[in-house]
Amino acid sequence: MPGYHIDFQPVGRRGECQEGESVLECARRLGVGISSVCGGVGTCGKCQVRILSGSVSEPTSDETETFSPQEINAGWRLACQVYPAGDIKIHVPPESMTTPQRMQVEGFEMEGPFEPPVRSYDVRLELSSLTNQTADAERLLAALSQQHKVDCQTLDFGVLKTLSPQLRGWDSHLRAAVRGKEVVAIFPHSGRQLGFAADLGSTKIAGYLIDLTNGRTLAARGMMNPQISYGEDIISRIAVATSSAGKALDMQALVTNALDQLAGELCTEIGAKKDDIIEAVVVANTAMHHLLLGLPVKQLAMSPFVAAVSRSLDVKARELGLHFAPGAYVHVLPNIAMFVGADHVAVLLATEIWREQGPSIAIDIGTNTEVSLVYQGKITAASCASGPALEGGHIKDGMRAAGGAIERVKVTKEKVEYQTIDDAPPVGICGSGILDTLAQLYLAGVVDGSGRMKENHLRVRNVEKGREFVLVEAGERDSNPPVVFTQQDVRQLQLGKAAIRAGIQVLLEANDCPEEKIKQVIIAGAFGSYIDVSSAIAIGMLPALPLERFRQVGNAAGMGAKRALISLSQRDTARTIAAQVRHIELSTAPNFNQTFTQAMYLGKYRLKQGKREELV
Amino acid sequence: MPGYHIDFQPVGRRGECQEGESVLECARRLGVGISSVCGGVGTCGKCQVRILSGSVSEPTSDETETFSPQEINAGWRLACQVYPAGDIKIHVPPESMTTPQRMQVEGFEMEGPFEPPVRSYDVRLELSSLTNQTADAERLLAALSQQHKVDCQTLDFGVLKTLSPQLRGWDSHLRAAVRGKEVVAIFPHSGRQLGFAADLGSTKIAGYLIDLTNGRTLAARGMMNPQISYGEDIISRIAVATSSAGKALDMQALVTNALDQLAGELCTEIGAKKDDIIEAVVVANTAMHHLLLGLPVKQLAMSPFVAAVSRSLDVKARELGLHFAPGAYVHVLPNIAMFVGADHVAVLLATEIWREQGPSIAIDIGTNTEVSLVYQGKITAASCASGPALEGGHIKDGMRAAGGAIERVKVTKEKVEYQTIDDAPPVGICGSGILDTLAQLYLAGVVDGSGRMKENHLRVRNVEKGREFVLVEAGERDSNPPVVFTQQDVRQLQLGKAAIRAGIQVLLEANDCPEEKIKQVIIAGAFGSYIDVSSAIAIGMLPALPLERFRQVGNAAGMGAKRALISLSQRDTARTIAAQVRHIELSTAPNFNQTFTQAMYLGKYRLKQGKREELV
Repeated sequence: MPGYHIDFQPVGRRGECQEGESVLECARRLGVGISSVCGGVGTCGKCQVRILSGSVSEPTSDETETFSPQEINAGWRLACQVYPAGDIKIHVPPESMTTPQRMQVEGFEMEGPFEPPVRSYDVRLELSSLTNQTADAERLLAALSQQHKVDCQTLDFGVLKTLSPQLRGWDSHLRAAVRGKEVVAIFPHSGRQLGFAADLGSTKIAGYLIDLTNGRTLAARGMMNPQISYGEDIISRIAVATSSAGKALDMQALVTNALDQLAGELCTEIGAKKDDIIEAVVVANTAMHHLLLGLPVKQLAMSPFVAAVSRSLDVKARELGLHFAPGAYVHVLPNIAMFVGADHVAVLLATEIWREQGPSIAIDIGTNTEVSLVYQGKITAASCASGPALEGGHIKDGMRAAGGAIERVKVTKEKVEYQTIDDAPPVGICGSGILDTLAQLYLAGVVDGSGRMKENHLRVRNVEKGREFVLVEAGERDSNPPVVFTQQDVRQLQLGKAAIRAGIQVLLEANDCPEEKIKQVIIAGAFGSYIDVSSAIAIGMLPALPLERFRQVGNAAGMGAKRALISLSQRDTARTIAAQVRHIELSTAPNFNQTFTQAMYLGKYRLKQGKREELV
Repeated sequence: MPGYHIDFQPVGRRGECQEGESVLECARRLGVGISSVCGGVGTCGKCQVRILSGSVSEPTSDETETFSPQEINAGWRLACQVYPAGDIKIHVPPESMTTPQRMQVEGFEMEGPFEPPVRSYDVRLELSSLTNQTADAERLLAALSQQHKVDCQTLDFGVLKTLSPQLRGWDSHLRAAVRGKEVVAIFPHSGRQLGFAADLGSTKIAGYLIDLTNGRTLAARGMMNPQISYGEDIISRIAVATSSAGKALDMQALVTNALDQLAGELCTEIGAKKDDIIEAVVVANTAMHHLLLGLPVKQLAMSPFVAAVSRSLDVKARELGLHFAPGAYVHVLPNIAMFVGADHVAVLLATEIWREQGPSIAIDIGTNTEVSLVYQGKITAASCASGPALEGGHIKDGMRAAGGAIERVKVTKEKVEYQTIDDAPPVGICGSGILDTLAQLYLAGVVDGSGRMKENHLRVRNVEKGREFVLVEAGERDSNPPVVFTQQDVRQLQLGKAAIRAGIQVLLEANDCPEEKIKQVIIAGAFGSYIDVSSAIAIGMLPALPLERFRQVGNAAGMGAKRALISLSQRDTARTIAAQVRHIELSTAPNFNQTFTQAMYLGKYRLKQGKREELV
């Protein structure tokens, strides 16, 4: 009898649970690092996890002592005390993990203009008396006008609510943060002026804290998107959000609380407070954008996939439940289409690729891969349904980029060499390792051009479900689990990489641009930063161009968010970009199906009108 | 042993409770109409009241059956079952009253301009498809621009949250309400467009529902300000609001819920819904303005009495907890000073007195009386601390204008004639009756010019606390309680009316304007509508001008709110008025104390530089 299926989130490690094995034991066998000090006897309380779905054993007395009935109800358990009673999905919170997930926050930073949308001014107010009973707000606005020639007309309503006691506490000497014609915050004259930029991805959130007096980054940090517990792909989350108004609010609260927490952690890092943040910018894909703002998403997931809004928005942070300065705004960049969001606009903004004549390509690889082609001053964009396989989803031993994930692979006739994150004992394979594995197997002739795995290597074995390649034998190092790469994994990868290659091809053909003319390919995003471009070329995911034409720029979406945070003109540019981009819905493109079929092949080749031309 | 003191609110009737008397019995003896069907045996549950302060008997089983423990905790009891165990204050909700309080909502209406701040447009949106995936908001804004040449830039965030499903439900045919460059509401193409105007007084709230397509009043209604349970005068309420942040929020919620309820009742009256309201205007005195908006009030109640803000404000209704259209704004008129609020600006606006050369006077009589003098194109305003006596507060048998209140009085040597509201058996005296009583006693020689009551009338008697005049003997009609008017009542009234007369005098002297030149005196407000002007002149409260120069205009503040609701230019005018008015703090005026002392006298006279000149 096979054990139950177990799925550890957010690390993304999946496997079978064996008979009589606790969740903690299973996690260890699968290489998921869950903290435990007491040795799994239920006394240290370190191994707290949350059961997201599936049935498990009844709580033990150790667990009822550790958790409140509400917590037990919400699924909280001790991993060492709980036993699966069916297929289960488990959330391991960061504080219970021994191996934190790798977060990509840095990106290639280009100098951008500094024209902050909020500026602050030091003012001294006239004192009030029985012969000068001028209201507090009027005295503040008069001081701004007289002392700084700043013509403000309104005070944010939240600022108005605190102004009177605060200015008395500060002896009528303060700084006022002004945005347009509105006072959005007041603080002591020695106060800080911070900005918060975030790249809100479906899986991860990258946050940046910026000094708005000079544009410098003070701190950067990543965290998992907690909505992942409602589904890894955006379509499942939309299904949840449309199931009830309450669920939609829950989904929104998850992500706004996460942003609030991330901002708080960044502030703590530099000894500041959240309400020192007087402006924020968020970029996200269109679905996350809608889920963050609480906009309806039902129409997003149904053909013809229409967004509620695409222009940029300025929303009061307090309306989103963010505890920034009372009048702080969150500026949200414009999106282009359901599957080409503000995050891609931010990539175009940060890389400045939009300025070029091209042909240049910007690509952000993920479950959904956005590609833009800039050619002759025009931008054409498409979205490719590349699926979760490239990042380790739907891959037997796939996992996200955490400690113990295999990230580099070399296969020769005799042996397999690999490198793991943090040099930890191998646990599974993350995206870059998966791409390497397929490329290496193809180059070593273990997998042929059509993707069929052959029986010509010592490490290939036939199992019940077909062939598989053993990357790591069990117990090679510190009793690690075995790590294999299966025939099915190859098929999943082929579907994903073909979607990307076909998308690029459609853009090229729509612009009559031959592939070999492409001057540069900018690869943005966390996944794209870590891949070996040669491997991506070897399997035919990317065009076979000279390597020097590729640039891996890291989290360019986050860099774009930072640019928009500190510059009004960059916001204008983002609007111009979003308005200019021509979006092509791939399914409506001629030859798409043929092109896709050809792009399934591994190897170096060129595509033309749905035909494949092999390169040496 | 005397009984306990009992105070019925909001009707304002006070008295002594006798030994062994239930609250219901006491209410009946004092003439307060509390409903009861079962004859006071605890079974009908009609006589629900709430104990606001003081100790009472333990709940009976009838009460524990009627109320939840939370309700009992909150003070809810059955009047027939509860017995005072000390001095108590009781709230009688409208549904438990047999005699509703008289509400002044009507006012003298002058034709004003109709230029509504929100206009709505019928639009048909382009249909979306895979080749036209334009976002919903963008298609709406494009339709407004193409079909109506309306250049809108933004959609309210609340509208954005409902737009996508709604336009699909309405087959892409809808009306959009536009305010400036913002879409504030969308509704089916046959939908209503309503406006709500409110005069938020310390004691009463008057509400009006307006058709924003033509400016017509569809319904009008008044209600008590529920904050009255926190204190009748504004200073006690400020004390409560500054005692803790929680109390301040409670105070705010009381009044926002009341406005929301009033708007709801008005909508129900005409078969509409609250979210048909797409714009609102509220006028209030400065303290109520701050309590409504949740602005800090501590500095308002301490010299030099500074408002947090005086300019007009546009606040989203949802930020105040009002359930109007998602993007509806509440426009709040500007105020002039702590004691001269937006309600007075609304009076000046509605009466158009600001257009005149004058000398003209506008006066709104209440616990706090605002007076403006318009002379030679200038407006000077002052606030007079007239106190609660004129409206029946601090008067032994005073009460608010509800059924059974004596509102007109005639005293001759032989007898006393009186008229009660609704012609009900007499219960107490309301403001206009109190003014009449004093005037009649003065004219009959029972009270002399200095305010001393003489023993020269059959109805005068000496009691423990001094002299009193018996207006109504006990049991004259349907076992009514006795109603008396005491020497102390005379003194309270003198203080109140002297404050008003001295305030008028200070304004005249500050403008070098002789009293006899005054061309008109406009008396606004509920109290002012019902008083007999001759009585007010007879006691020296108002200058002795020919009667034809006085105009009683009813709720002019409410009329001003309506004007501002339907006209942008009237809002500009209100801003201009508020900015032009010179406010005089009476306590800083020369001769104020002397003038006040002289104004205590009863009779017809003129005041000059603190001296009194009797008139015949």
